Amino acid sequence: MLVIGEKINASNKSVGQAISNKDREFLENLTREQDVAGADFIDVNAGVGYGTWEHPEAAMEWLVELVQAVTDKPLAIDSDVPSVIEAALRKYRGDTLMINSVNAEPERLEAVGRLAVERQALLVALVMSEGGIPSTVEERLVASELIMTHLTRQGVREDQIFFDPLVLPIAVDSTQGLVTLKTIEQIKSRYPSARTVMGLSNISYGLPQRGMVNRAFLLMAASAGLDAAILNPLDAKMMSVVRVADMLTGRDPSCKGYIRAHRKGTLIE
Amino acid sequence: MLVIGEKINASNKSVGQAISNKDREFLENLTREQDVAGADFIDVNAGVGYGTWEHPEAAMEWLVELVQAVTDKPLAIDSDVPSVIEAALRKYRGDTLMINSVNAEPERLEAVGRLAVERQALLVALVMSEGGIPSTVEERLVASELIMTHLTRQGVREDQIFFDPLVLPIAVDSTQGLVTLKTIEQIKSRYPSARTVMGLSNISYGLPQRGMVNRAFLLMAASAGLDAAILNPLDAKMMSVVRVADMLTGRDPSCKGYIRAHRKGTLIE
Repeated sequence: MLVIGEKINASNKSVGQAISNKDREFLENLTREQDVAGADFIDVNAGVGYGTWEHPEAAMEWLVELVQAVTDKPLAIDSDVPSVIEAALRKYRGDTLMINSVNAEPERLEAVGRLAVERQALLVALVMSEGGIPSTVEERLVASELIMTHLTRQGVREDQIFFDPLVLPIAVDSTQGLVTLKTIEQIKSRYPSARTVMGLSNISYGLPQRGMVNRAFLLMAASAGLDAAILNPLDAKMMSVVRVADMLTGRDPSCKGYIRAHRKGTLIE
Repeated sequence: MLVIGEKINASNKSVGQAISNKDREFLENLTREQDVAGADFIDVNAGVGYGTWEHPEAAMEWLVELVQAVTDKPLAIDSDVPSVIEAALRKYRGDTLMINSVNAEPERLEAVGRLAVERQALLVALVMSEGGIPSTVEERLVASELIMTHLTRQGVREDQIFFDPLVLPIAVDSTQGLVTLKTIEQIKSRYPSARTVMGLSNISYGLPQRGMVNRAFLLMAASAGLDAAILNPLDAKMMSVVRVADMLTGRDPSCKGYIRAHRKGTLIE
């Protein structure tokens, strides 16, 4: 399971303030901590124009330079505004790159697909259109087909695409866990070279003891074929569950990673 | 998820000794504790001739009487010896009943299938023949087809059958988690009225921190369609995971069971 560290995100209040105040040290530490904790990608979301920043593009440029100065991990450029993504790409020097995200809207597919081709970037594609998250598997598959058709016509390879199956809160509709899991399975079966990615916290929205629900859903999603998760790598229980998920889905031959983590004392229950 | 409480099992040393010593109080308490903890069935395994018992049949008769005197929960009669199962059935007064287990060997299918028809019992069927646990999905499906053909010809209904997909240790072969999960999915798709059941502890054999591996595998199996698990209902972390599994697979409408457990303080992480 690829882990995309979610912490550098302006929608998190303390991070938003640090971006606004140009608090380099705070953001550098948060980057380093995620790197050390085992994130495979560092997500970078500079928000939509915080405080002292006149343009979100300028904030993104500054943040990408700051983050890549303290980690060699590839970045996931997190914005749904093409000009902000372009700003990030102007500053990003790494080879591997993820753009997070596009959806099935033709205009955005056109703009972001072009960037993905130019930079050979991995691309997170939300299986939805303008109208919000669809509640059925079928509607999500319609969106995934639109996305795949549009992007491959532009020259994006199937293996560049990470579909996000999307998650609605189980507290609102008790069928939504299965809807997301079936969407993952269907996408994996239809597009064998494409991968899947999702954020975990939506599933438990409105419930108590959310951590255990999120961890449980990660395990279920892993067995449905999830390839990557956007999560907090500083959550030691979650990272332990990622290790167990890898082991149980055959991604940790001879259980070496699991046993090593146990010996280091980092498998937290 | 149906929970089959596994504690009354002579292969557990203290239970074996209690059966041998006719320590009623110990066994009655263990039964009551499992009942209160939320077991849906109480598994009863009297062993194969312990200590002061001349015949395993006599030990099973005594144990069934003892257990059903302190719980109204249905029993799972746990033996692979038809005469021991018959002994249990002579004493068992409940309506609902599970026989645990039969496998694909024709002689045993014949004998145990007959008892299942006579008593309209639920029947756990291990998808293996004499030769031990098959390592592939395909071999397990061959066994399940043999079992289904044989039993339905005898008059057992498909919905009486709980297939056990079987679990080999992940430490021995890192593909075995997926083998079991795929076996569950395939069985559920081939026999829509049949159900699936499994024990959890085999998966983690030989590994440290086995509890977290077992709990993780339960969650994966639940999302693959597992209907019942043989487990220790006194393990509060495991029972909490059962609740979360039910919620995430749409078996807990409006999350009422989960929220009630949270309020009672019984959701243990």
